[in-house]
Amino acid sequence: MKSFERENIRKMAGYASGEQPQDPSTIKLNTNENPYPASPKVREVLHNFDVESLRRYPPPTSPGFRKIAAELHGVETKNIIATRGGDELLRLVTTTFVDPGEKIGMSYPTYSLYPILAQIQNCPTFEVPLNEDWSIPDNFADEMNRAGVKLTFLVNPHAPSGQLVPAERVAELAQQLDSILLLDEAYIDFANIEQTSPAMAIASDNIIILRTLSKGYSLAGLRFGYGIGPDSLIEPMMTKTRDSYNLDAISQQIAEIALDDQEHARQSWHSVISERGRVQVALAELGFSVPDSHANFLLAEAPSGEGLDNAETLYKKLKERHILVRYFNAPRLQNKVRISIGTHEENDRLLSAIQEIYGSRRD
Amino acid sequence: MKSFERENIRKMAGYASGEQPQDPSTIKLNTNENPYPASPKVREVLHNFDVESLRRYPPPTSPGFRKIAAELHGVETKNIIATRGGDELLRLVTTTFVDPGEKIGMSYPTYSLYPILAQIQNCPTFEVPLNEDWSIPDNFADEMNRAGVKLTFLVNPHAPSGQLVPAERVAELAQQLDSILLLDEAYIDFANIEQTSPAMAIASDNIIILRTLSKGYSLAGLRFGYGIGPDSLIEPMMTKTRDSYNLDAISQQIAEIALDDQEHARQSWHSVISERGRVQVALAELGFSVPDSHANFLLAEAPSGEGLDNAETLYKKLKERHILVRYFNAPRLQNKVRISIGTHEENDRLLSAIQEIYGSRRD
Repeated sequence: MKSFERENIRKMAGYASGEQPQDPSTIKLNTNENPYPASPKVREVLHNFDVESLRRYPPPTSPGFRKIAAELHGVETKNIIATRGGDELLRLVTTTFVDPGEKIGMSYPTYSLYPILAQIQNCPTFEVPLNEDWSIPDNFADEMNRAGVKLTFLVNPHAPSGQLVPAERVAELAQQLDSILLLDEAYIDFANIEQTSPAMAIASDNIIILRTLSKGYSLAGLRFGYGIGPDSLIEPMMTKTRDSYNLDAISQQIAEIALDDQEHARQSWHSVISERGRVQVALAELGFSVPDSHANFLLAEAPSGEGLDNAETLYKKLKERHILVRYFNAPRLQNKVRISIGTHEENDRLLSAIQEIYGSRRD
Repeated sequence: MKSFERENIRKMAGYASGEQPQDPSTIKLNTNENPYPASPKVREVLHNFDVESLRRYPPPTSPGFRKIAAELHGVETKNIIATRGGDELLRLVTTTFVDPGEKIGMSYPTYSLYPILAQIQNCPTFEVPLNEDWSIPDNFADEMNRAGVKLTFLVNPHAPSGQLVPAERVAELAQQLDSILLLDEAYIDFANIEQTSPAMAIASDNIIILRTLSKGYSLAGLRFGYGIGPDSLIEPMMTKTRDSYNLDAISQQIAEIALDDQEHARQSWHSVISERGRVQVALAELGFSVPDSHANFLLAEAPSGEGLDNAETLYKKLKERHILVRYFNAPRLQNKVRISIGTHEENDRLLSAIQEIYGSRRD
């Protein structure tokens, strides 16, 4: 049968979403969801929502949400774009600023969606390997510039390691780069250090920050994120490349109230950070190597010499016990699993299961 | 300041959404919204929604909705893609099947979003003018093929005229076309004749049908639409070019219940059709020329010799009276306004206002 697909689309494979188990007893530590629920005010929005209003188109530019986000970050409304999850912002940055055939730069490893977005836009990717400790090599910007990269994706805190690049180093990178820097701060709410990145972005001419309500606000199911940047970069996405009504009326109202309830959100960040510390220590006691993380997950390397240093085996043995973690069959990650931080009880069950798995191997 | 925008994006203007008046007393007949509310079951979904579940990612492929849509249309789930309004489907068809530089075909006039999507993808448009009576010229497909068009957009019923191309003629067009035919049936629910297009699409290798819940299901604020087509065309959009989680958890549940409540939806279609007939007759009695419409709007040409045959004046005089209709400052449309069908009372107020405007001119 004749294929109508573009050549680049025909050749590519799509993004693989994390597993979604149907069994409700499964402990799901594989997709970095927040283990604590969203603000209780979300329920009020749903209860009081004016259903009659749904027959009308929603506000096309999410003005209410953008005003709240602007106030939160000390920027102007024109410096904010509201998007259908962070994913829409990543797509818009690509389609607005990178011509097909131009290069898109990123570190290796990084968020696995970036190369997919490049393929859809028919852009080659240019990857710079991170140092052994997951830090950014000194020549990162030089390499990007030499390759002629037009857009650089940087996830910070880094996925899947949880490493944080300090704000000063990010600012330096942005100044060195000839390209736009898309600074993906999906996990920034869980960092141990408060970053001053929004002020830095709007003072620049080439930084766009990505934020999302999926993790820090426990709203992965809502699909709501936003971008922060100078007007010159935000405006073309707002007025030209964005789908005209990209955000529905219900999610705009929920996102407004959730972002405004900073107290509730911060409480969940503190709980995740506290649990992350506890799990890290416990895993280290079990012989794992676990670098410090500023995100809501840990990248854990199994102890060698146990026959389980192939992390795929550990992933499978945990799955048998109804605990899902993430295993990446990719260079430099084959001996590691990424574990999202769960509730206290979920983390206890994870640690018991790991102890059981290694204990039984030791017999 | 240095511009990072792609050349084609820098040159283009974005889509202009219809006006959204803040004054609640305004009668809004300018954006083809359904005047009647959505199914009362939508309220139940909102009331009973499990807020706790929002911390998790939504089902990435909207399986529940697609199953209901497939049953409704007598096709298989794999023949359905659920999208963030019809707009997302239009974008996906463009990015999946048309390389930058390739031509996108459409009639003139047509839905004003199509040329915008072509510009974003950096594709030239090829326009074939409709006949005087808004019907499709006999050589439409030949012209498209000769121009080497890769994707043809056809809105049916036509916007802004409301003309319907019969299903047999659509099938003939699709067979003649070398390109994909995107058959935009945003308004099909209001047609006087039941169309058999879904069966036709899945039996073809080049038809994708667009449906939306915005008009027929009174859910413009929800942003939910879908595509119907052969697996070969649906699958690459589902697995490759679509944003991984394009539809949030709440809207998936609402869309399921709304599509399933056919009785409620059909009731609103009958009411709109009945009001459309009444308004058409009344406008004709006032001297307007109003062709039959199969959509939830009428394209009305003001009587000549009244000094108001420049429809922009009529638009403005109605706006002074807090009634919004749509005026297109575009060739062949300058002496016409597009009027969305409102409730019985709204239509009465429209007709009185028009009578008043013309009466006062006659003095």
